[in-house]
Amino acid sequence: MDIEQANLEAVGRMMEARPVLTGMGRALDVIPGMREDLLLHAGPPITWERASGPMRGAITGALIYEGKAKSMEEAQRLVESGSVKLEPCHHHQAVGPMAGVTSASMSVYILENKTHGNKAFSNLNEGYGKVLRYGAYSEEVLERLRWLNGGMAATLGKAIELSGGIDIRALLAEALHMGDEGHNRNKAGSVLYTAKLAPFIAQAAPDSETAAKILKSLGDNALSVLNPVMACCKAMADAAHNVEGSTIVSTMARNGTDFGIRVSGLGERWFTAPVATPKGLYFPGFTEADASGDIGDSTITETAGIGGFAMASAPAIVTFVSGTPKDAINATLEMYEITIAEHKAFTIPQLDFRGSPTGIDIRKVVETNTTPRINTGIAHKEAGVGQVGAGLVRPPMEVFHEALMAFAEKYGF
Amino acid sequence: MDIEQANLEAVGRMMEARPVLTGMGRALDVIPGMREDLLLHAGPPITWERASGPMRGAITGALIYEGKAKSMEEAQRLVESGSVKLEPCHHHQAVGPMAGVTSASMSVYILENKTHGNKAFSNLNEGYGKVLRYGAYSEEVLERLRWLNGGMAATLGKAIELSGGIDIRALLAEALHMGDEGHNRNKAGSVLYTAKLAPFIAQAAPDSETAAKILKSLGDNALSVLNPVMACCKAMADAAHNVEGSTIVSTMARNGTDFGIRVSGLGERWFTAPVATPKGLYFPGFTEADASGDIGDSTITETAGIGGFAMASAPAIVTFVSGTPKDAINATLEMYEITIAEHKAFTIPQLDFRGSPTGIDIRKVVETNTTPRINTGIAHKEAGVGQVGAGLVRPPMEVFHEALMAFAEKYGF
Repeated sequence: MDIEQANLEAVGRMMEARPVLTGMGRALDVIPGMREDLLLHAGPPITWERASGPMRGAITGALIYEGKAKSMEEAQRLVESGSVKLEPCHHHQAVGPMAGVTSASMSVYILENKTHGNKAFSNLNEGYGKVLRYGAYSEEVLERLRWLNGGMAATLGKAIELSGGIDIRALLAEALHMGDEGHNRNKAGSVLYTAKLAPFIAQAAPDSETAAKILKSLGDNALSVLNPVMACCKAMADAAHNVEGSTIVSTMARNGTDFGIRVSGLGERWFTAPVATPKGLYFPGFTEADASGDIGDSTITETAGIGGFAMASAPAIVTFVSGTPKDAINATLEMYEITIAEHKAFTIPQLDFRGSPTGIDIRKVVETNTTPRINTGIAHKEAGVGQVGAGLVRPPMEVFHEALMAFAEKYGF
Repeated sequence: MDIEQANLEAVGRMMEARPVLTGMGRALDVIPGMREDLLLHAGPPITWERASGPMRGAITGALIYEGKAKSMEEAQRLVESGSVKLEPCHHHQAVGPMAGVTSASMSVYILENKTHGNKAFSNLNEGYGKVLRYGAYSEEVLERLRWLNGGMAATLGKAIELSGGIDIRALLAEALHMGDEGHNRNKAGSVLYTAKLAPFIAQAAPDSETAAKILKSLGDNALSVLNPVMACCKAMADAAHNVEGSTIVSTMARNGTDFGIRVSGLGERWFTAPVATPKGLYFPGFTEADASGDIGDSTITETAGIGGFAMASAPAIVTFVSGTPKDAINATLEMYEITIAEHKAFTIPQLDFRGSPTGIDIRKVVETNTTPRINTGIAHKEAGVGQVGAGLVRPPMEVFHEALMAFAEKYGF
């Protein structure tokens, strides 16, 4: 078995994947294995008992949204009794930012990888403030979810179909030339997304007021494209998964309690360890003492070679996550040390159009003692509060050690 | 008289100006001094005889558009006989890209400087290919002008009013953090502009098909915001004009034959010299031998501290105008040598958020023997062809020498 060859195959598939946003659908109808009694969540598997505050809040919100519970106590009973099951989004070709909780009746984006045929899914972005993904579940949060998953998704789905599909890889490549890194900074991507869909939203909406409302909500939300971007990266990472003999990381995800990775050549096994707390800038009135542990599937962006790996593209992001533009350049340069390729589609003008560092090799992480850099939002540690800041975080080194040992065991070297 | 004090006053006014796009109107109704028998054009004053190919083509197109001529010969007769007059846009608080020809019935953007009260105007952007501003005047060009100045302007004007006005200085500041320099690269600005107006276009349009058509044309045109941006810079530069004793450049403009500047402390007098030919990248099938001389009022962007002066913000622009991202950084660094301020509103992430070099001092240009750097489109030298490339150009040094001598004469030092 030739590891180098296997890794080139895996990273080649990751970079050649061309995920196109083709429509929307109800989670129950389109996500493989979705069921009425199932909630999908971010990160590796979790139980109620071990779940963080924001994860419990989001589970509660989703069960209230589905009409299955009225309070956190009822939600807890449903989950602990097994009447409602929890499974990772990642086990269902899906990803969700922060808590990532997705229930059967929610609407999801459908991404199709035109190169390899696999699909990926993600829910709609709720914008800022008190939102389900940060663990808030007040009536205001639920009201917004009803609109997003109802009227907005109906029009948006039609508009995407009318557009003939949106090539999210191409959109991301453009956004990286416009100061985004694709994870914490999706400002350019979100306005590109809004502008591309705008004519079709005007045509698809039942009336001009609905069109205006949707256009305003997409245009004002600098994260509106984050969820399709994450599903795009998921489709890329999945295309690179299950290459026999490959040491390339195909999943990085956090549930607020554990950080988990999966490796292309090691199948469905998760390697997990307790999450760290992000370092960054806090919103007025909050400090690190308020922060939840690292949470969310959005690390799929770093897995696919953008986000923290493409920091050099996004010098203005430092006003949001701390540091200087020089730190942003250095972040990307460091990530070349633990990756095996320079992305063919994602180039960085600030580095003379060098491809972004792509394809994390668990061997390089361990050899260089350098963990991946991750940009992230920071949730409040208690359920119901929401976002308190944004910053930088690293995975625990143990997961790479464990994965490497498992690899040695499986492949006997 | 204290020149330094006068210059600080001038550049202070330039930076404090806050031009807001408040609506649209017919040139005849809103531009001061506009008349039925008048055509406005880019750059300093010009005659038919001395006019370049693209300028003649645009004059012809505008007169056919107004129903005053049917051919270039007729257009020439009208202008040479004095039945139709030519005056610079700059004499009427207006600016226009490339040939900049604006006739009485055309629609123009209205920008109001909320700090000092002055207004500025610019026509609508036609997009790419065969367009009037590059000297093309075929039926396709005229048909597009009828739509732009008719149905599109009607809806756009209403949408701008519904929006409550768009702060173009704020939009530009955002775009400079998104890889634009505001002159040749207005990709981020144009999608921001489209996304901001989209909800109001949906509301203002007579029907959803018209809304879709306008949204598509704004979103697909990476220069759709160029004309409001130019009018924004014109309002800023005008606010800095006529400060007694100031050596700050308040106008740079080209008509395809002459490059002209005006200086804050020297009133309405133009200092002109023959234009250079831009160096840059040509579209397939064209070479420098096809290029017209430097043309357009868009140098108002460099006059106001963006465009070529903010190149460092826009590393990806080098794929369009030639050079490397390092050249882009150096271009901005060089411009600090001939300016007296760092812009308060326009900051450059790549230079640790340093303000862009603003306020060209004719004394510094002469002392350092360094002329301003200008990013520009390149027109074909013959009427009717259109754009053939994009690149970089510098003004002739003579105009700064002449202006400095005139300054010494007027102020007796």
